[in-house]
Amino acid sequence: MAGKTQTRRRALREALIEHAERRIHADGLAALRARDLAQDAGCALGAIYNVFGDLGELVLAVNARTFEALGAQVAEALADAPQDATGQLVVMARAYHRFAAENYHAWRALFDIDRPAGAAAPDWYLTEMNRLFAYIEAPLRALFPDLGPQDLALLTRALFSSVHGIVMLALNEASAGVPQAEVDRMIALVLHRMAGLPQGK
Amino acid sequence: MAGKTQTRRRALREALIEHAERRIHADGLAALRARDLAQDAGCALGAIYNVFGDLGELVLAVNARTFEALGAQVAEALADAPQDATGQLVVMARAYHRFAAENYHAWRALFDIDRPAGAAAPDWYLTEMNRLFAYIEAPLRALFPDLGPQDLALLTRALFSSVHGIVMLALNEASAGVPQAEVDRMIALVLHRMAGLPQGK
Repeated sequence: MAGKTQTRRRALREALIEHAERRIHADGLAALRARDLAQDAGCALGAIYNVFGDLGELVLAVNARTFEALGAQVAEALADAPQDATGQLVVMARAYHRFAAENYHAWRALFDIDRPAGAAAPDWYLTEMNRLFAYIEAPLRALFPDLGPQDLALLTRALFSSVHGIVMLALNEASAGVPQAEVDRMIALVLHRMAGLPQGK
Repeated sequence: MAGKTQTRRRALREALIEHAERRIHADGLAALRARDLAQDAGCALGAIYNVFGDLGELVLAVNARTFEALGAQVAEALADAPQDATGQLVVMARAYHRFAAENYHAWRALFDIDRPAGAAAPDWYLTEMNRLFAYIEAPLRALFPDLGPQDLALLTRALFSSVHGIVMLALNEASAGVPQAEVDRMIALVLHRMAGLPQGK
């Protein structure tokens, strides 16, 4: 009997993640309601909280999938990338831009999720972040072999944040200012400057 | 009589902006409710919509004040800044970071405001953005006198977006990854690299 309950629980968990993912993709995180998800999954409202501690936990599960998809898209872009380090950085940044544009709401949910003030991100979240950072760190290490590990980590995060900021403001209709068509040129400009190379296309 | 109605209307408008500003500062944009504002201002719910077309318009009015305060803080920092262009960029970026940290919710509201899909930002918003961009463009023009106006505008926005991204991810508890204490060092690193100078402090 315990096995059956567990199986049902796991099935509900999967169903809720899928419904939440679909709703986040369609309408964004802000519109996500437990009530709607219960209806989607054909379960009582309270049943959600038997599976997830709160709605935030469910969103983190959706974010895990988004991270995975993002990582896959970056890895795929990298497989076709030129062998020089700056070229790889540019290719990855453009893959990031494309992923964010094509999965805007899910991508925003990675960063917009509310957490109680002062609460740290969960370990698995940091592990996922670090997996993505490792993609960036490799070409940077090739470009700057003299950087110590701490400075390398700092430069990696600075570079990611810069590209993230460009993509965020470009895709955010509220802020305009960054012309959408120019985003990839802007990214290349920043990366070439940061990599110390002459301004590339 | 018309004058009296207008005076009352203007007073209600000011009161609503102030209450909305206080609530955004305290709890963030997502928690803003027309119902609460009506209670704060001692008016009927419908009276809000006689003064503002919708809640978004009221938030834009709050954002206008935030832009003004941000501009003032950047200008003040600039007055004490060193005379070299890169130094000025670093000082401004740090002022931006400080403003965002001290006015987190109001600063987020500048970028998080919802607008109907495809709707452009209003003209006054773009004017305010451009006023801030002008601060950045001046030292960049000194650093890169050969850049044409289009490339200069692009580099200005790229640089702003980069700093914005660093500050955003640093202040966003959801994303961690960027160590809070290192943010100003990270900003200086990016700006010095982008300005083509050796890695500064």
